[in-house]
This record gives sequence, structure tokens and C-alpha cells, in this order.
Amino acid sequence: MSNSNHRGRAPSPEPVAGNGLINRRALLGQGIAIAGAMGAAGTVTGAAAEPLKDEPWSLEFGSVTPPVQTPSRFEKDVVRTLSNPNGEFRNSHARTPHHLLNGTITPNGVAFGINHCGIPDIDPAKHKLVIHGMVRQPLEFTLETLSRYPLVTRPAFLECAGNSAPMFSNQPMQVTAQAIHGLVFNAEWTGVPLSTLLDEAGIDRSAKWLVAEGADGQMLDRSVPVKKAYDDALVAIYQNGEHLMPGNGYPMRLLLPGYQGNMNVKFLRRIKVIDQPAYTFFETKNYSQVLPGGKTWRFHFLMEVKSFITTPSFGHSLKGPGFYAISGVAYSGGGRIAKVMVSADGGKSWGDAALQGPIYQKAFTRFVMPWRWDGQPAILQSRAWDDAGNVQPLRAEFVAARGETKQPVATPLAFPNQHYNSLTSWGVDSKGEIKHVYA
Amino acid sequence: MSNSNHRGRAPSPEPVAGNGLINRRALLGQGIAIAGAMGAAGTVTGAAAEPLKDEPWSLEFGSVTPPVQTPSRFEKDVVRTLSNPNGEFRNSHARTPHHLLNGTITPNGVAFGINHCGIPDIDPAKHKLVIHGMVRQPLEFTLETLSRYPLVTRPAFLECAGNSAPMFSNQPMQVTAQAIHGLVFNAEWTGVPLSTLLDEAGIDRSAKWLVAEGADGQMLDRSVPVKKAYDDALVAIYQNGEHLMPGNGYPMRLLLPGYQGNMNVKFLRRIKVIDQPAYTFFETKNYSQVLPGGKTWRFHFLMEVKSFITTPSFGHSLKGPGFYAISGVAYSGGGRIAKVMVSADGGKSWGDAALQGPIYQKAFTRFVMPWRWDGQPAILQSRAWDDAGNVQPLRAEFVAARGETKQPVATPLAFPNQHYNSLTSWGVDSKGEIKHVYA
Repeated sequence: MSNSNHRGRAPSPEPVAGNGLINRRALLGQGIAIAGAMGAAGTVTGAAAEPLKDEPWSLEFGSVTPPVQTPSRFEKDVVRTLSNPNGEFRNSHARTPHHLLNGTITPNGVAFGINHCGIPDIDPAKHKLVIHGMVRQPLEFTLETLSRYPLVTRPAFLECAGNSAPMFSNQPMQVTAQAIHGLVFNAEWTGVPLSTLLDEAGIDRSAKWLVAEGADGQMLDRSVPVKKAYDDALVAIYQNGEHLMPGNGYPMRLLLPGYQGNMNVKFLRRIKVIDQPAYTFFETKNYSQVLPGGKTWRFHFLMEVKSFITTPSFGHSLKGPGFYAISGVAYSGGGRIAKVMVSADGGKSWGDAALQGPIYQKAFTRFVMPWRWDGQPAILQSRAWDDAGNVQPLRAEFVAARGETKQPVATPLAFPNQHYNSLTSWGVDSKGEIKHVYA
Repeated sequence: MSNSNHRGRAPSPEPVAGNGLINRRALLGQGIAIAGAMGAAGTVTGAAAEPLKDEPWSLEFGSVTPPVQTPSRFEKDVVRTLSNPNGEFRNSHARTPHHLLNGTITPNGVAFGINHCGIPDIDPAKHKLVIHGMVRQPLEFTLETLSRYPLVTRPAFLECAGNSAPMFSNQPMQVTAQAIHGLVFNAEWTGVPLSTLLDEAGIDRSAKWLVAEGADGQMLDRSVPVKKAYDDALVAIYQNGEHLMPGNGYPMRLLLPGYQGNMNVKFLRRIKVIDQPAYTFFETKNYSQVLPGGKTWRFHFLMEVKSFITTPSFGHSLKGPGFYAISGVAYSGGGRIAKVMVSADGGKSWGDAALQGPIYQKAFTRFVMPWRWDGQPAILQSRAWDDAGNVQPLRAEFVAARGETKQPVATPLAFPNQHYNSLTSWGVDSKGEIKHVYA
């Protein structure tokens, strides 16, 4: 067969930024340029074929099909890391392994969870949500009654205000994306618009705030503007198609898309309608971030536009020069992701990443950038913009505005610790080892 | 407080079809009409509130946070039903509990699976995919090398050609939506476009077909048109964010959006490029549906437009007259869902259901229709259209064209048994009990 009879000729991929970033249009048109170039450069990822050999699994009858299937034993590292593995009498953080995941959905098993009083074992037949206060008629709802409403389905990310707290350290901590950014996840949520329930109770037009309270031992309560309830709040009862996980609020939780995690009150049992914020313990102590100079934000609900590279990242290593894809997630409490730029030279030059659409507001967007690594040191960064014009600040700008700690920290108990949304930089050395760096 | 100071006045919901279907615009504008009307009719789902009582879970420290979380013990019925629970030396069907799920994502744990030789225990470090035949350069790929490509993320349903086989019975079988329609699921898939790999291998322009082969004991092989590879085929390596489940093809499978399940070859180990279909054992025996009159479809790849109601459905019961939501899934191998109509009177009259957007092609779309049940017998049906103009045939039309069996069947071994895409009808009696009926 002559070459002219083949598809997949190999035009040179067009560079779009320094250190090997390749035009993202190479991803379109079915990737022809990239695939061809890989062959042309002798750094193919698909190596020439050897004869097929039958492995044991091709020659034997496999295992029994289970009622609920679980990942392969070869995926044993795809688990949450725990801050309190023995269930001591304090709070517990379980972080999502973003460096081992892909796409945009976070599987429910590894969705992050923070619980201050363990995981409650709530009987949905006994749990009730009460709406009272400035309403015409106080009402109560069970999981069964909520299920009778026309439910709404939408994706949304959920991020702890303290996610990425290690980035406030004045030294880059040598830990994974899971340890740094593991307190965010993305799911498809299904529930009842909170506005429907407030309308049914007959909310007073002069009401301005809600106080939402959880049913576990913590009994967290948070003030939420009525405006948010009428914007896009849900009482969520399904997470990725099944009822909520016990650590994520079973049987019902408040979902305030784009607002900091703890406001999305889990195990929701009460919403009191009032005319002013409640200034509860948690919102005035834990969740009022102190700023340089000693002032604090009274309320700081929105999680800002943010992105981070998940592949390659700390804990991965590159197996020699050649072609790789740089991939990560971007999201914004302020709207849809409009653009993600990627740099391989520590921010000297930037190329437009491909976004996997359709792009939902206030939900993960996966970005991908083709990259040819030449074997020299490189610094990988991503930077996201949303459709409201917000952009991730550069690290120097961010630290000037928000401060940093004097020591490396891995705990959200050091301050400042909340609402980090600047860049994350992964340094690749000439051996392909990846470190966390500030650049 | 005077009533005029409250939101949520109660206009009467506008009927759009017989037996209590309510205008779906009631779902928009924040459901005000529905919520108000529920109160007005004395059939509120949210009852008047009693004082809150502290349940045990509010007064104690809960359980330890696990590395991988699992559903509440109160969700023990949300599991797959198994045709071969003891792993006997034959095939095995595990069906998805659609009547207990919501939204559009099927959680990986309960995604349906059919395996003919058990679940293989494949070591991803040893598994290889080979592309050979009419190519310039045969190539091989591992999970690690595929992970270096720019990956594409998209949702898609995956349906066994034999899904809904019980609907060919000449008597309506009294079983759940899980038993009838449990051989379809919907996931977010991430993988490499097959076209990229074929281009890298240098596919011959005169090639017309591929033969894809799996690595488990069945060694299923199927012929796939090259055109489909260049349309939207992926070699998928992630399912809802994590690597594929062992029963769904770990570590890699072919994904042919909209094509019948078995063609989406699991445990993919070989793609041979050829110039004609292979007429393999499975495609000529199992997957060539016999038609009335004795002819067969030689190839019948596309899964047709379809929908079914998941809530309420067989196995549920209505707790008295009042407001309910009718909800289900719709999908089409031919494109995007354009419209779903719902009937509560066995097809005499129809109302437009609300679709949860954005709507992806060849993926689940959740539809919702508000319904006020008056306590009289009702027959619930859904009917879907796609954007190519295809519509679910009525049952009489379908049976005339495709036939039915003489006895009730629950097994796909009776014929005809494939590509059922007509309506499903749930009959509600005056006690609120739900039966499967033909209407």
C-alpha cells in the first residue's frame, strides 16, 4: 500500500506557547496532527505491535457478578485521604483524589466530606425538614414528600472555603493535588427548588434571610440570603443519580451552587425565615476569614474562579521526553468557565486549552492542552476566566491581598486559610519528577 | 401578617391533558402555581409543622469517615438484580434499579453489566490494545500510553440490544422498571477518539470495517464501520470520573455512542482494520434479530429513540390522592431528545413534559411532568421524539412490525427479543397500586 492511500499524514503541530505547548486545534479535526507528529518524532505513545499473547484472564472464567460493583483491585489508591481515620472526637476531612480522576463527575464513593461529629445514621422515615418563621404556614417535609415534587437536575461543584489552605504556606508544600485541592468535588444534583417550598409556606415579602440548620451532632446553622433561595438553591436529595451519601448530607441537604461548602447545610432539618442574618457561631468564628491588617470579611459566600492541573501533577512522573496531555479542572461560583490558559514555562507564555463542553455554570469544566516535553525543566500552570470576566489572580497579587503563613501548614487551623483561588504550579525536572513550586 | 405580604399566591394550575396533568410551565417560574395549589386543594405534601424533636443522630457522635463511602443502610434495595448470582458457567446479567434512581447519571456501582465469562481480573500493566490490519504501521497501546493523549469527555447511554425484552411478551409482565429496562445506563465517559489512534497507525483509505475483540474469556468480536470510528467513537478509560468498572470493561473499552451495547467491546485488546464485515459468531447468531416472516436484520446497530417512566412505576404505590411528579428517562441513538409527551389516560390525551437541560445527544435526558391524581384509575405513559424526527412507535404499530411472543418471557433467549422501543404503560388503580399494563 502506498502512503498516499493512508489518512493521518503528519503535519507539524503548531506551537502556541513556550516549552512545547501545541495548538489546541490539534485536538479537533480528530487529532490527526498530533497522532502523526508522535510517529514522526519517534516518540510515539503507541509502539509497534508485537504478537498478541493470551493472558490468564483470556483463558479462564472470571469472578461472580456482584449486586454493587466496585473498582478493580489495581485501583486501590483511588481513595480519599483521612484526617481522622480512627474517628476521634473531633472533625474529620476526607479528600478527593483529583490526581487520579478525570472527566468532570466525582464518583460518590470518593466525593470529599468534612464532618464535625462523625457520620450520622439518619433514618429517612423519621427525618423531617421544617420551614417556619416569617411564613404564612409553617410546613414540614420528609424525603418521601419531597420526592413527590417536580425535581430539578443540574451539576454543581461543592467546595470547602478552606480548600487549598496549604497554598497559603510561604513554602510550597510537597504534596499531591488531593492534599492541596481535595476539598472540592463536582456532582449532578437532583432536588426541589427551595423557592417552591418557601412559596408553599407563604414566605413574607419582607423576609431577607434564612437560617438553615443540620440534624447531626454539630447542628451547624448558617445564614443564607433569601435572594439566593430564589436564584438557584435546591433541597437536594440525589447525588449522581442515587440518594445522597451519608457523609454528604443524607437524606437531604441545602445546595447553594457556587457558595462555600459549609453553607450547603447537610442533614437539613430546619429553615427559619427571618429579616436579618443570625450571626451564628460558625459563621462568625470559623467562616469569617481574617484579612491582613486584622479586618475580616463579614460574609464571603461565593467561591471564586479557580483551576488546577490534575495531570501531570505531584506524585506523577514523566517517562521520558515526548508527547503528554496536560489536563485539569476549572470552575467558578460566579458563572461559566469562559477560558483556561495553560503555561509550560512558569507563566512566561500561555496557550488556550480545549474545554470539554457543554459548559455548565458553577460546575467543573475539564480542560486539556497537548504538550510535547523536550526533557528540559518546565513549570506547568493553568489560569481560568469565567463569563463574568473574573480571572484567577497571579500568586504575587493574591499573597499581597490575602497574606500567607510564616510556616508550611497542612491544617486549616492556621490563618489565613480560606478562599484560595490563585494559581498552582507543578515543576517538572529533567528526570520527569514533579514538584510543587511557586512561580 | 396579611396575605398580601406573602409570595406564593395560589393560582389554579392549568390542566394540559386528561386525568390531572398540569402545565409544565408550572415547573418554571419557581413552581409557584404548583406549591400554592397543593395548599389550596388540601393535599399538601408539606404538612403543617410540629415541634422539632431531637432524634438519636442529633445527640451522639456518628461513625468513622471511611476512605471510600457507600450508601446509607436505608438504601439497601438500590442494587443490581442478578441473573446468575452464584457465578455458574454461563452468562450473567446485572440490571440497574432505574425505579430507585433519579437525575441522568447512573452511579458506577449499579451500572448494568452483562458478562458471558464472569468478570476478568485484568492487570492494566499487562493489558495491551493492538491496532493492525490495513494500516501503515501496526501499533499497541496500554492504559498508561492512552492516558497521555488529549482525552475527550462526554456523556452517553449504553443499552443492550436485548434491553426491554420482557416487553415482547403477549401479556404484560408484573415486574419493575429494573426487570424490564435495567439493561441500559448512562455515564460520563472519558477516552481517546478512536480516529486519533487509527490516524496514528495510518489507516488505509480503502478500509471500510474494523473488527474489535475483547480480552476476557468470551473474546467477543464485532464488526464496526470505519465511518463510526470517525464519527464519535472513543476508546474509553474513565466512567463517571474514575477508571472503568471491572464489569464494564476495565481497563479500556470501545464506546460507540448510540450503538447497541455489545458492539461497545469491553476489555478491548484488538482492532483489526479490514475491507468487509467479519460476520463473526456473535453478530450473525446472537445479534441478528429475526423478524416476523423469518427474515433477519443483517446489521442493526442503532438503538432507537425510547423513554420510560421511572417514578411512579411498578413496585411504588401512591399514598392517596394529591400531587405527584411523573418522571423518567428518554434517549436516542439517533440524536438529541427533542420532546417527551406524557399521558395519564392511556394515550387519549398528552401533555409536554419538562426536559432537564442541557440536552446531550445520545445520552439520558430526564423528563418531569406535574400530576394531580384524583384517586381514580389512571394509565401513565411517556413517548419521546428526537431531533432527527424519530418517535417511539405506539405498541400496536410496534407489535405489528416486530411481533411478540406467545408466552410471558423474562429471558432474552426467546425471540423476538431485541430493539424494543415502544411505550411502557403503568396502570394506577384506585388504591394507588401500580401494575404493568398494555394500553
